[in-house]
Amino acid sequence: MNFIEQLIQLIKEKRSVVSMGLDPRMDNEGEIPKYLIEEYKHPDKIILEFNKELIENTYDLIPVIKPQIAFYEKYEALNALKETIKFAHKNGLLVILDSKRNDIGTTSKAYADATYNIYKADACTINAYFGIDGVKPFLDYKEKGLFIIVKTSNPSSQDFQDLFCAKIEDVPNSQTEIEKKSIKLERNYIKMARLVYNWGLNLEKNRSGFHNLGVVVGATYPNELKRVREIMENSFILMPGYGVQGAQITDIRYGFKENGLGGIVNSSRGVIFAYNKDSKYTSEKFGKAARDEIIHMNRTINKEIGL
Amino acid sequence: MNFIEQLIQLIKEKRSVVSMGLDPRMDNEGEIPKYLIEEYKHPDKIILEFNKELIENTYDLIPVIKPQIAFYEKYEALNALKETIKFAHKNGLLVILDSKRNDIGTTSKAYADATYNIYKADACTINAYFGIDGVKPFLDYKEKGLFIIVKTSNPSSQDFQDLFCAKIEDVPNSQTEIEKKSIKLERNYIKMARLVYNWGLNLEKNRSGFHNLGVVVGATYPNELKRVREIMENSFILMPGYGVQGAQITDIRYGFKENGLGGIVNSSRGVIFAYNKDSKYTSEKFGKAARDEIIHMNRTINKEIGL
Repeated sequence: MNFIEQLIQLIKEKRSVVSMGLDPRMDNEGEIPKYLIEEYKHPDKIILEFNKELIENTYDLIPVIKPQIAFYEKYEALNALKETIKFAHKNGLLVILDSKRNDIGTTSKAYADATYNIYKADACTINAYFGIDGVKPFLDYKEKGLFIIVKTSNPSSQDFQDLFCAKIEDVPNSQTEIEKKSIKLERNYIKMARLVYNWGLNLEKNRSGFHNLGVVVGATYPNELKRVREIMENSFILMPGYGVQGAQITDIRYGFKENGLGGIVNSSRGVIFAYNKDSKYTSEKFGKAARDEIIHMNRTINKEIGL
Repeated sequence: MNFIEQLIQLIKEKRSVVSMGLDPRMDNEGEIPKYLIEEYKHPDKIILEFNKELIENTYDLIPVIKPQIAFYEKYEALNALKETIKFAHKNGLLVILDSKRNDIGTTSKAYADATYNIYKADACTINAYFGIDGVKPFLDYKEKGLFIIVKTSNPSSQDFQDLFCAKIEDVPNSQTEIEKKSIKLERNYIKMARLVYNWGLNLEKNRSGFHNLGVVVGATYPNELKRVREIMENSFILMPGYGVQGAQITDIRYGFKENGLGGIVNSSRGVIFAYNKDSKYTSEKFGKAARDEIIHMNRTINKEIGL
């Protein structure tokens, strides 16, 4: 079964649009608990134990997890990543590998092969600066999901993504043509969204009208989210930025369609290190704290989006 | 000593601006020779032996190698990557890790940590779609080199990179402002180049006037190369696309300044699989074939750029 069908089925079964971001950090107090670090010593084992405990405590409440590969690279714990994905599958979860890979066609194919044959993710994130060449090798894995970054959650996403640009259909060949045609401009992230929309036109849609090609829009930018939602009628929007990065519940509303579908809300630090937020949790209770946080997120979000 | 100083010193010593791209492939005939695959069995060993032989045959002729991490991920051979980098260093070569990572600040820091603490590269490539947040963690490694992708070598780089955009200093707040100001538009890749130029303004420059922040421009686009060269006065330009991708010797001229500095020309498949191009090489002679190809590249390029 293809990614988007499975995702929608799990969203409905579990009544949740929450993704738990598995971004293991262990450089500071309040991240992966010390007792795990002392007990398991090697990052590969520490991180796997941490992730397993999180998954065991939450698998019945969420449809999907999103490991951020940067942290597995940093701690040289790619085996923990593979084992985490295997464990998530065993527990009925889907996995979006957050890797934002990008390159020319033949290299992009190597990244797609790694994503699906080595790590065995169900979906991933990519950056489409290279245009369709770098996207196609991922789309060739027809059953898999893909989320292209459009408007990112960080403050400096404006540096490039918010610049004003000519619309795809109007791209001028010269400055003279711009003046003659009085071309309307749109911001770069909108431009990227329209490209992704076009690339998705021939993809197969499921009964709910969605296909496997989605986008990433930071929940920290509600107005931008609203505009992208309007453009991307057949795409799911993956929304990072909820929680620690500051996005609020009212912000994420715009990522969803009226039926409560079309969005996935990711929280990483806010869930996996939730044990810090309340002194009632000891560090041994990080799994329980994550569970409680997800229960709270599900309740709050479902009320807002009408799922 | 910092990256750009070392690079320039090696360019002068070896009279070469060539980078050998170590992109191991072994799915087809004419890639990594069969006898190595049969002898070493595990990709980690096969790739390491292949790379070592290439390095042993070429280290006296070139300043730098550029491994493409996608292939090491695809064959689950990241250990070969680490060992290759160690071996390259032992042989006096610099290493640009071609990984094009990109993310929000805290995640980008994890990628930078992996690049410099785990893989121990001297420089890397990144994608700056996220703006300065995603770039800064890499710049914080002050001695290391950085190449931001500006105009990529692939055919569909036009999809996004060639769109017309408002200049940084002119970014309008609305359509009305665009019309009132009669703002001049520039293509997105130029826009990206100007951003990178600005980010580099406060970086320390060496005696030749270069700093550690460079850009990537495909040698397949000579006109674009020329324009970026004009903007990026203090940056080295890494030029992929020579050889198999079709860039010619006259195309790469534009990437250099008058003194023959400012550019690095990368060739991957054209060098490492050069043994296919002439029946005088058996597959066992792939190292010798790579050496001959680099001698030829050095001679041709140096004549063209006046090094």
